[in-house]
Amino acid sequence: MENLKNNVIIVSGGMDSITLLYQERPKYALSFDYGSKHNAKELPRAQYHCGKVGSVHHIIKLDFINELFESSLLKSGVVIPEGHYEDENMKSTVVPFRNGIMLAIACGYAESVKAENVLIGNHSGDHAIYPDCRQDFILAMNYAMVHGTYKKVGIHAPFTNLDKRKIALIGKDLGIDYSKTWTCYKGSEKHCGVCGSCTERKMALEGFDTTVYKV
Amino acid sequence: MENLKNNVIIVSGGMDSITLLYQERPKYALSFDYGSKHNAKELPRAQYHCGKVGSVHHIIKLDFINELFESSLLKSGVVIPEGHYEDENMKSTVVPFRNGIMLAIACGYAESVKAENVLIGNHSGDHAIYPDCRQDFILAMNYAMVHGTYKKVGIHAPFTNLDKRKIALIGKDLGIDYSKTWTCYKGSEKHCGVCGSCTERKMALEGFDTTVYKV
Repeated sequence: MENLKNNVIIVSGGMDSITLLYQERPKYALSFDYGSKHNAKELPRAQYHCGKVGSVHHIIKLDFINELFESSLLKSGVVIPEGHYEDENMKSTVVPFRNGIMLAIACGYAESVKAENVLIGNHSGDHAIYPDCRQDFILAMNYAMVHGTYKKVGIHAPFTNLDKRKIALIGKDLGIDYSKTWTCYKGSEKHCGVCGSCTERKMALEGFDTTVYKV
Repeated sequence: MENLKNNVIIVSGGMDSITLLYQERPKYALSFDYGSKHNAKELPRAQYHCGKVGSVHHIIKLDFINELFESSLLKSGVVIPEGHYEDENMKSTVVPFRNGIMLAIACGYAESVKAENVLIGNHSGDHAIYPDCRQDFILAMNYAMVHGTYKKVGIHAPFTNLDKRKIALIGKDLGIDYSKTWTCYKGSEKHCGVCGSCTERKMALEGFDTTVYKV
């Protein structure tokens, strides 16, 4: 663990957070099991890559989200819509203030283990639909965390203004095998290829050796 | 529920949040079971008063806090210190970023049930020791929530610059029976009377008919 940085990453098992994990090599990693339809696909990928990097990894269960919140992404929710990520119908996939909740928990954990920053892999492709992925949110949340902790824990979100294609190119340079990441919202045996998240993944990985669906 | 306001309150079962509950009469209320030593004392009081007001009340379990966080307030933590609330040794009672975590969850819930604001009873007596009770934190967190939600969920924290004595006087006017609130950090059968929280409670209730320890 000597060569790892004293930070906490939020890692889902998708392309973006896995790229951030290999780029930043943090000591600590948190994943969240909040009852999404694809949690059984995502979480083992998060665990696998954290093991490769050597980060201490915890999976935090947030049962109340599936029980009390409204979103098609959740097991308790309606059917996942198909189409492009930025389409109006994708709004049903928003889990309200999910990034706020994950960042707040990671902030408290960082203060407990005396880590410096929280890393999160939000990116510009999320901006149209997910308000808690945008720059304004990240900046305000950063201030809330800095003011709300003794150690002045901050947010490092270097992909905020990059699109998924640019993140994939960073990952290519780092030698990441994206076939070992999970993107699809539906959580079936293979990537569905038609949900908003799959559509964006295909565009990001166009021309890559990595088979998009080999997971 | 017709005369209740479309807000979500964070309610612990202590004097401050119970006063806010009766003052604001919100439709929705959330309490958090995060493994504190006094949770079995606090939570039934929260439930009792929410029932009186008629608020929909959920208790959300956050087991990871007791498992992964560092604080003397937790069952997993060291002994609760005795003395005045603002003493240096009270710092061990901080649960890192607890208000940030509770506000973030309440924000996501508010967006789900289409409520307007989140209410929280932080006050000036907390400022010395608890960074996530101060004005700077509340303002930044408010921005993060407004930017991070479609409904622009905000924070209403009207006690931020009042001390506990002033809150108690508001409660007196509202006819609140403070003997049915819990303050002590230790969670023994009766209030201990010597922890920081009890010391502050005694000063706030000086001269009241309410017996401080009658709970």
